[in-house]
Amino acid sequence: MKLASLKSGRDGKLVVVSKDVTRYCAADNIAPTLQAALDNWAECAPKLEALARDVEHEAVPCQRFHEREAHSPLPRAYQWADGSAYINHVELVRKARGAEVPDSFYHDPLMYQGGSDGFLAPRDDIPLKDTAWGCDMEGEVACIVDDVPMGVSSEDAAGHIKLIMLVNDVSLRGLIPGELAKGFGFFQSKPPSAFSPVAITPDELGDAWSKGVIQLPLKIDYNGEAFGRPEVGEDATFNLPDLVAHAAKTRPLTAGTIIGSGTISNKGADGGPGKPVAEGGAGYACIAEIRMIETIADGEAKTRFMQPGDSVKIWMDDADGHSIFGAIEQDVVQA
Amino acid sequence: MKLASLKSGRDGKLVVVSKDVTRYCAADNIAPTLQAALDNWAECAPKLEALARDVEHEAVPCQRFHEREAHSPLPRAYQWADGSAYINHVELVRKARGAEVPDSFYHDPLMYQGGSDGFLAPRDDIPLKDTAWGCDMEGEVACIVDDVPMGVSSEDAAGHIKLIMLVNDVSLRGLIPGELAKGFGFFQSKPPSAFSPVAITPDELGDAWSKGVIQLPLKIDYNGEAFGRPEVGEDATFNLPDLVAHAAKTRPLTAGTIIGSGTISNKGADGGPGKPVAEGGAGYACIAEIRMIETIADGEAKTRFMQPGDSVKIWMDDADGHSIFGAIEQDVVQA
Repeated sequence: MKLASLKSGRDGKLVVVSKDVTRYCAADNIAPTLQAALDNWAECAPKLEALARDVEHEAVPCQRFHEREAHSPLPRAYQWADGSAYINHVELVRKARGAEVPDSFYHDPLMYQGGSDGFLAPRDDIPLKDTAWGCDMEGEVACIVDDVPMGVSSEDAAGHIKLIMLVNDVSLRGLIPGELAKGFGFFQSKPPSAFSPVAITPDELGDAWSKGVIQLPLKIDYNGEAFGRPEVGEDATFNLPDLVAHAAKTRPLTAGTIIGSGTISNKGADGGPGKPVAEGGAGYACIAEIRMIETIADGEAKTRFMQPGDSVKIWMDDADGHSIFGAIEQDVVQA
Repeated sequence: MKLASLKSGRDGKLVVVSKDVTRYCAADNIAPTLQAALDNWAECAPKLEALARDVEHEAVPCQRFHEREAHSPLPRAYQWADGSAYINHVELVRKARGAEVPDSFYHDPLMYQGGSDGFLAPRDDIPLKDTAWGCDMEGEVACIVDDVPMGVSSEDAAGHIKLIMLVNDVSLRGLIPGELAKGFGFFQSKPPSAFSPVAITPDELGDAWSKGVIQLPLKIDYNGEAFGRPEVGEDATFNLPDLVAHAAKTRPLTAGTIIGSGTISNKGADGGPGKPVAEGGAGYACIAEIRMIETIADGEAKTRFMQPGDSVKIWMDDADGHSIFGAIEQDVVQA
């Protein structure tokens, strides 16, 4: 099934959306909000699934679904933890500054605790106070889990993944070096992220949900041009269940926890840095990556970070070219 | 006024507690949970204050308040961000490993994004899987804010501090070096924290709330003996409004965000490392600190981290010796 939260109050109003993302039916008689459904998923999910079947068969009155009326599926969440599963991205970061990737990065996932108290809606502007902060997009996949016990295995973690979304993990690259030097991780460098208008159960992906990753390309347009088409199923050092298990090593995870993949990043066909889409490559899911490739090739980055007026679109099509999650579409504006 | 959340469901049941922390009256006719009250603070706070006056005057039926029946005031929260305002603690960490404290640490607060999806109740056991993880307490003060706009000044941030609590920020010291080396900050090394049974409005502190810090000692007993009596109002490089402003530099903060002070840490009377309580000093709010002092003095740490069977108590008395927030009392148990 596909779920969305129409803008309403702090937590939105839960609706079931048709598979083609054109119609919805209110689900607030089952649970007022998506968080409320996740708090009681075992009881709510079968009812929501039944409503989803009715929506598909047009057995209930539906209304037109406008993606712009949707908030992020969880407008605020109790936890947002973002991994960095595509080590190619980390390899490029390190290579650009002449550093090695520690061997441990290939078996111990990178993950940071993100702010989750208020997300942007998928069509919200990205407010930027200072262009020197180096505003960047990061195209990612994320999952929402139910209650996960401490110490869960990666195998068991897979069963706790209840919903999948796309993310634009907005990052302020100019603030990252200073924060990392302080040793306490990202904070000011990670302003609110935005999620896709629709969250889906993994079964909606059919064969494209395999081995804990989506076997489809993520699509990123930047200022109206194709910027990235990376294959989510390729070059993933860790899958989503691995990341859930990592997050739960020393503590349980509460229902509604969101775990992200990190920026999707593919190697080039020759195993080296990936090429731009215009040159036949898979392109990039963030600007930092093309800047690192420019730095490696030419000694300096040419592509600038986002500024007021720039726009980013992130979405995913199924094998038939139909949008699965709706699209994140955001403009950067002066704050 | 003083508020608590009696254990009930995922978010507890909001009650108003008498100033002497012995009686309570249910407040769920005003707001079912503390988060609900914070979501609508401008409307709820005056009603809760009126109820608090009635509780004080015994004008409403009250029941006996048992601290063990209280969850953390926010059993789960949308944000928990913890500063490190007592740079003496950082100075000792660095000195123990022969490193300098960067000058920036004295004007740019350290802060990490903590997990907030599920806190321990103030009397909950601390589950520990592996003693090699180096389980430690951290005695701290924290505040809860209402909605804070992005870019708020420290002066304006003070007015957004609605409630104050104590915290035991449980830390796994053995996992910290590895996580810091990865550069993404704390994650597995910060399992769930516990907060005091009662959260209070700043006016409850009277003159002891001054300059954005509490002017009273925090009390920490470890295995039944006085371990720390540090003055919260001394050696604070940053006050709570400074930390709120830091957190809000690049994003707004949603109502219910918790901002922590970091481990309270006093210098010794001579400006050097603080002495143990038994030797007339203020002692320590975490075990790491005495270990660092041992390392600086003798080249190695003697005091071990917490193990199953160890217990910690954290509380604060007013000038008349009455407990202000109730007590955090936790035993470490094998998970």
